[in-house]
Amino acid sequence: MSESAKGNAHPAAADASSHGVGADANSATDAPLPRSSDDSSGHSLRARRLGIHTHEQPVVYLRKDSPVCRAEGFEARNRIDVHVDDRTVTATLNMVSDALLKIDEVGLSEAAWERLMPEPDSKIRFSHPLPLDSMGWIRAKMYGRSLDGGQLDGIMRDVVARRFSDVELAAFVAACAGSRLDRHETLGLTRAMVDVGSRLSWNKSPIADKHSVGGLPGNRTTMIVVPIVTALGFMMPKTSSRAITSPSGTADTMETLAPVALSLDAMRRVVDREGGCIVWGGAVGLSPADDLLIRIERALDVDSIGQLVASVLSKKVAAGATHCVFDIPIGRTAKVRDRAAAATVVSYLEQIGEALGLRVRCVITDGSQPVGRGIGPALEARDVLAVLRGERDAPMDLRGRAQTLAAGLLETIGAARGRAAATLAEETLASGRAWAKFQALCDAQGGMRELKFAAHTHDVVSHCSGRVRAIDNRLLSRAAKLAGAPHAAAAGALLHVRIGDAVHAGEPLFSLHADTRGEIAYALDFVDRHPDIVAIEQDV
Amino acid sequence: MSESAKGNAHPAAADASSHGVGADANSATDAPLPRSSDDSSGHSLRARRLGIHTHEQPVVYLRKDSPVCRAEGFEARNRIDVHVDDRTVTATLNMVSDALLKIDEVGLSEAAWERLMPEPDSKIRFSHPLPLDSMGWIRAKMYGRSLDGGQLDGIMRDVVARRFSDVELAAFVAACAGSRLDRHETLGLTRAMVDVGSRLSWNKSPIADKHSVGGLPGNRTTMIVVPIVTALGFMMPKTSSRAITSPSGTADTMETLAPVALSLDAMRRVVDREGGCIVWGGAVGLSPADDLLIRIERALDVDSIGQLVASVLSKKVAAGATHCVFDIPIGRTAKVRDRAAAATVVSYLEQIGEALGLRVRCVITDGSQPVGRGIGPALEARDVLAVLRGERDAPMDLRGRAQTLAAGLLETIGAARGRAAATLAEETLASGRAWAKFQALCDAQGGMRELKFAAHTHDVVSHCSGRVRAIDNRLLSRAAKLAGAPHAAAAGALLHVRIGDAVHAGEPLFSLHADTRGEIAYALDFVDRHPDIVAIEQDV
Repeated sequence: MSESAKGNAHPAAADASSHGVGADANSATDAPLPRSSDDSSGHSLRARRLGIHTHEQPVVYLRKDSPVCRAEGFEARNRIDVHVDDRTVTATLNMVSDALLKIDEVGLSEAAWERLMPEPDSKIRFSHPLPLDSMGWIRAKMYGRSLDGGQLDGIMRDVVARRFSDVELAAFVAACAGSRLDRHETLGLTRAMVDVGSRLSWNKSPIADKHSVGGLPGNRTTMIVVPIVTALGFMMPKTSSRAITSPSGTADTMETLAPVALSLDAMRRVVDREGGCIVWGGAVGLSPADDLLIRIERALDVDSIGQLVASVLSKKVAAGATHCVFDIPIGRTAKVRDRAAAATVVSYLEQIGEALGLRVRCVITDGSQPVGRGIGPALEARDVLAVLRGERDAPMDLRGRAQTLAAGLLETIGAARGRAAATLAEETLASGRAWAKFQALCDAQGGMRELKFAAHTHDVVSHCSGRVRAIDNRLLSRAAKLAGAPHAAAAGALLHVRIGDAVHAGEPLFSLHADTRGEIAYALDFVDRHPDIVAIEQDV
Repeated sequence: MSESAKGNAHPAAADASSHGVGADANSATDAPLPRSSDDSSGHSLRARRLGIHTHEQPVVYLRKDSPVCRAEGFEARNRIDVHVDDRTVTATLNMVSDALLKIDEVGLSEAAWERLMPEPDSKIRFSHPLPLDSMGWIRAKMYGRSLDGGQLDGIMRDVVARRFSDVELAAFVAACAGSRLDRHETLGLTRAMVDVGSRLSWNKSPIADKHSVGGLPGNRTTMIVVPIVTALGFMMPKTSSRAITSPSGTADTMETLAPVALSLDAMRRVVDREGGCIVWGGAVGLSPADDLLIRIERALDVDSIGQLVASVLSKKVAAGATHCVFDIPIGRTAKVRDRAAAATVVSYLEQIGEALGLRVRCVITDGSQPVGRGIGPALEARDVLAVLRGERDAPMDLRGRAQTLAAGLLETIGAARGRAAATLAEETLASGRAWAKFQALCDAQGGMRELKFAAHTHDVVSHCSGRVRAIDNRLLSRAAKLAGAPHAAAAGALLHVRIGDAVHAGEPLFSLHADTRGEIAYALDFVDRHPDIVAIEQDV
């Protein structure tokens, strides 16, 4: 931006003679200029916990007429730094009237309170946040420039330190959306995400892992693959995500059957005892940067190949995995829409996985329609239980996919080869050993839970007779979300047909499940406006 | 996304028989399903004005245990629609503990309160916002696709209706940053911005206008051009912006001398009387979409050529301008960095201006250093007054630029040609007619004000002897902002040297002006870390 300087300017030393030009009523002393209000004004405010949940963004509430605001010129600023002892939070500033706070009080949102942990007599200090270098890099990315490893490190450090506002995080997510992060940036982002989180080591190899690239409702194979592989004595400490843009993540579905929000220590105890686990990655803090970005990606309902790969691989590396199988469903309404897109994802996963010391195997699967019948946490858990228990009407597609992925993983870690690996996976499931193991895992994680059912359901029926031609994963997911999934665990959709099925007019295609009548209504309103969720080829 | 359907599904009619599958305790009646909580549950909450200023984003505060939350499943949602009579606001939802609200209360932020205007006995109703089609288009833009006119219309309509969260607006701004809006999209965006605002007509032609493309601190020529042109009997109803990313906008600088936040009616009265005005465009609501986007662009410190051109031209068209001169400063640290970039801006302005019926003339100017001496609202106003009053030490560069632009505008509207236009502009200024007109304009806008001076100033001196080689507009602007500009009107920087000037060690290069000692300290800390703000070629 500017040429290398041969000579330059520097600020005057802090002596009285250099305070020149205008009158400076307070500049008669030689004292160094202050950096925070506590030092400058001696005003100190009492912290008040206002009990406001602001979606994890720290917010601080100040009265416009408070001495701190007047002394520091905070009135119209968006962001200020708040300090308690050696803890600092960069917070969004909301000015308030005198109805809410006393003149000597500062209000803190829950996110700010929990990070600052003020005592009744704590001194609360304030300062202006310095401009973030990393915001300059995000701006450069918006303008189309590439980011190097050091810049991505800096951005992730500031993400984890929560120095960005939600608006700034949204700009980063948008600047990286689609295919705007190249391979090199994706590797840099993955490394940066690993570096700002904890990293597990297991003193053992192989450590198996799996991941399904999202977008396919009901694709809950993890809860079947983990018990198969661990029942065979291999180690598989699995951390899963909650839903980003979908009606349920594996962690959400697993949580309907057992606790998943385990600490790192608790997770270790489960793995030591059972050789595996299925827990929520967010609670163990393996990739805290990712957890913070995902909140914004969810709000925008958007992600990118670079962020997807970095998100997935950073968690595998942080979890100490050595071998990983990836399920990549292809479908017009899945996250990966065609073979070309799948090839890109596969090459990103393989190359970046390899660069990070992870053995990667990708399995391309059918993503044309949901897997199993349930869409939403508890409804999906029902399908998983049916497969594990070997029930006769268990969804065959879910069982088949889980066996294929388990076989691929067994082959990758060297447990068996080709047909033998497939047989090993099938027998472990059919014999009930996987089911026994799953119950043991649930027990170790805190005890198995009863599934809940939704209070309200509503059938959506076919208005004609014919054959199911297509099912739109995205629209069906959105309907399930409007019904309350994943926040309401029992909510979602239950699919009664699959592509190719014959249906008669008036027969149910799927049902909506919700905790409240209001949510059924919202979902139904959406279904009404999208008659193509299940497309029927009419009989002629 | 999905093929055209030959047959399809539709939701069941709302009769009891179609509520199938699970038990539905409440579905025994034939009543249509409800759309909002008030109808469904009969719970009604009392509105409470919490007096929280949330930077214009409406926020609603609800207790987790309130009947509405339980009935509607709002707990973990980010956004809800709030209705009072026929007014609706889409608000960010913050859950609160019982300390802040009573069980039958709903808290409203100032932005929500002002838009909903509840009476003491108003019924407050809530519903889930439907997914916005326009958010899908923003997502497409993030993924690199182009937007058509209809989509841009839809996005601007939802911007003005405040249906987007700040996070969503940030994604739109980031998706359009840099050069990501092509010419066609920029025309569409400009039209869309005009269509969602008011549009003035003056029953007269020509209507003169001018605009300087930002990035050059102190470039306050508008406040000189308008009085010159109107003193000559031409009509120039000028609306100006407040600062976006700079230490001052023309509206901020003008406001230190006269009221600028005039209503449309008040503006009309001023123009009827004086033939012109210099008011804040945001108050007259000519481009409300732009005003809302600018708030996010300011938070991100970012803009784009497309948004810049759309922002500028939409305001000219809405203001009823027929002829407009554009000042385009080129400099390494100005908004437009080189001739190639300037050529792009010129061609966008000319082509899109023409498509909208606006006669456009672009003047390329020097953007290598600030104009005049002051940077910040009141400091810049001092320079303007010195030029208008014909003071001997008035900044020559500011006077020269203003005369050039006035001459260009006079030529464009056909008042004079070539050298005669230049002479006309110079004489109107030199004779004091422009100064008399400026005072009349201030009077008409509500009365001329005394300039304020900052309480604290601090000189930044050269540490060596030599010659000024370069001045960094961006860094100097940032220092002025850290000192409090534009929020603190008297704050900013006062430049004592220009490129080519000889300086001795210890001589002041510029001074920082601030209302508080804290702000001087922040600015100084920044200056300390950026010794290149004024680069000196050292004597050998």
